[in-house]
Amino acid sequence: MDAKRAKTGVVRATTTAPVNIAVIKYWGKRDTKLLLPINSSLSGTLDQEQLHARTTVAASSSFEADEIWLNGKQEDISNQRLQNVLGAVRALAAKKDPEHPLKDAHIKIASVNNFPTAAGLASSAAGYACLVAALAELFGVQDQELTAIARVGSGSACRSLMGGFVRWEKGTRDDGADSLASQVVPESHWPDMQVLILVVNAGKKGVSSTSGMQSTVKTSALINHRAEVVVPQRMKDIEKAIQDRDFQTFGRITMQDSNQFHATCLDTYPPIFYMNDVSRQIVQILTQYNDAAGEIRAAYTYDAGPNCVIYCLKQHVQEILSLVCHYFPSSESEFVRGRSTTASDYSSTVDAAVREKISGPTTADGVKYILHTGIGPGPKTLTNEDAFLIAEDGSVKQQA
Amino acid sequence: MDAKRAKTGVVRATTTAPVNIAVIKYWGKRDTKLLLPINSSLSGTLDQEQLHARTTVAASSSFEADEIWLNGKQEDISNQRLQNVLGAVRALAAKKDPEHPLKDAHIKIASVNNFPTAAGLASSAAGYACLVAALAELFGVQDQELTAIARVGSGSACRSLMGGFVRWEKGTRDDGADSLASQVVPESHWPDMQVLILVVNAGKKGVSSTSGMQSTVKTSALINHRAEVVVPQRMKDIEKAIQDRDFQTFGRITMQDSNQFHATCLDTYPPIFYMNDVSRQIVQILTQYNDAAGEIRAAYTYDAGPNCVIYCLKQHVQEILSLVCHYFPSSESEFVRGRSTTASDYSSTVDAAVREKISGPTTADGVKYILHTGIGPGPKTLTNEDAFLIAEDGSVKQQA
Repeated sequence: MDAKRAKTGVVRATTTAPVNIAVIKYWGKRDTKLLLPINSSLSGTLDQEQLHARTTVAASSSFEADEIWLNGKQEDISNQRLQNVLGAVRALAAKKDPEHPLKDAHIKIASVNNFPTAAGLASSAAGYACLVAALAELFGVQDQELTAIARVGSGSACRSLMGGFVRWEKGTRDDGADSLASQVVPESHWPDMQVLILVVNAGKKGVSSTSGMQSTVKTSALINHRAEVVVPQRMKDIEKAIQDRDFQTFGRITMQDSNQFHATCLDTYPPIFYMNDVSRQIVQILTQYNDAAGEIRAAYTYDAGPNCVIYCLKQHVQEILSLVCHYFPSSESEFVRGRSTTASDYSSTVDAAVREKISGPTTADGVKYILHTGIGPGPKTLTNEDAFLIAEDGSVKQQA
Repeated sequence: MDAKRAKTGVVRATTTAPVNIAVIKYWGKRDTKLLLPINSSLSGTLDQEQLHARTTVAASSSFEADEIWLNGKQEDISNQRLQNVLGAVRALAAKKDPEHPLKDAHIKIASVNNFPTAAGLASSAAGYACLVAALAELFGVQDQELTAIARVGSGSACRSLMGGFVRWEKGTRDDGADSLASQVVPESHWPDMQVLILVVNAGKKGVSSTSGMQSTVKTSALINHRAEVVVPQRMKDIEKAIQDRDFQTFGRITMQDSNQFHATCLDTYPPIFYMNDVSRQIVQILTQYNDAAGEIRAAYTYDAGPNCVIYCLKQHVQEILSLVCHYFPSSESEFVRGRSTTASDYSSTVDAAVREKISGPTTADGVKYILHTGIGPGPKTLTNEDAFLIAEDGSVKQQA
């Protein structure tokens, strides 16, 4: 247990947690309070070097109430999902030790992201996973049940509690006790797997995923067939592809499942649109690129927004970066970020034979920037004082 | 029989035929040679005053070969679908009269549309329906089997051989003999039903429907569920709605089926996109409009392209025209065409209570023009010489 007890009697723990990007999409709940899904899902956990949430939790009998600060700003902690998470962790701690030293202590929470929350990069999953990991540290509880606790904060948060590739079983029990996340393979299994996130310039955000998925469940004539027939087979097939490091199968299923998720959104009444013309243009360029290469080299997937996430292998990263830079020229000074900071020249990187089979308009500034990242580990506990967002005396530190 | 025999021995017939717009979409063939569909479909036949094809067919023992002219230009008649249609009509005539006077005559065909072929307004359906109607006139054959002959030219052409609302039964026989079109109600049944076609400014045309639908049949995990489970119920429900003049049910199913058709295109691998951002913006504006009105007043449907077709009732035409003109301002001089040539002012036509619930960006020139039409009759036979595209001597007249 790495929780730090200061002389002041304030006990603290700080963790970071990753973002995850699903390749088999979660869309639709069978229980909207317990956040139980109508189908299992599977995701890659992204490298925290590029994207992570960082959370410090502190407990003290001297605190008069539970409080939360997000990105340096105090927020209302009465939020139902937050209360569900706090209550569930306290209950788990009490189950393990009825006389738990923190059982009556109030808790202060401070959390920040190292990336823009608004960019549509699954920040809530990282945020709730980080909160649960930090509380688990604080209370000294470690249990797969923690994934069920993260789930009641934000469904897909349960997949951010482990590294590598992670499955979230839909489960069958009404109480959700078997709707848990577990690791398919650790991050070390497939080191060549890379991730490129194309942040697309978009207008106002579309329908929230919480209301959108319930509208789909209520009105789509196709969603049940997807959940009951299509997804179970895809889960088996993509898990095997990951075990075998079979990128062709992995990439095909990833693209097909992204397409089908957006298809069920369109089959919703009234229809829900998350992809825009730039998103579609990216799909068409990558489809031509894969066809020209005679193999799948870039596997796109889209969540509830226009951003494109590309899973690809290390040897094709520069080719794909140069392709995107060619068709989406940008005036942005830091257009390529993360593991790569520049893109090679298109004509010198991509074979002429491949290039001549790709065509389409170029769209200036259609893509805001590209983040190059990869697959990484689960939450990490930090112990150096600099990492703490709450000081020894229990006060929330000012953000630089 | 209105076929005209001239002193020259040239026998001629001229007919016009309408465009039809499906409300239950045809997408996917079970037989690509006989053009047998995987699901039944249903459409409204549009008023020929605004949109029609006109075809003259001429037969003479003096002609040395079959020939065809489209919009004044001679085209290759060896096209397989054309040959199938010619062969099928000749076979039907021979079946009725083994000694048919025209059995050895070659045929000249001349056809024109009164609307731009490129605009994506289902011109092939009108064209093949018109060819079959003219040939039937020429050979003096009238039979429901004609709808099967039009079908082998262009699947949905079979629905343009009757007025009002028309069903096309998928049929179950391998030879397609029971995959026929029949009338649900004549055009006189629901005179208040109006149609607005919003021609959207688009880039290059997407995937052809012929290749697109087969790609969907091969790769979509949802298309069979649509064809086998969803469509049969919708066919029953929308036929009843039409019989009952129940616009609320008619409009809801029309929009749902358009959405689902495009959803199965998106579920295709690689995905097929026909709607663009303007198409989607129209959907969102009309959805807000219907919600604000507390009833469905504008029912959108999209075929294999970005154009929007709106089914609506007469009393809401001006309201909808003014709404579209408000959100899609245009510099086009003849922006509103057909039964209406002007749109009333938005703020004076649409209630303030409705207007304040509608919001969104305005997109200048996103819509090229609006054609106001309605439901009309099936093919018509023309007998005045001016209407003929081929002269008494068998020569093709020059187009003005």
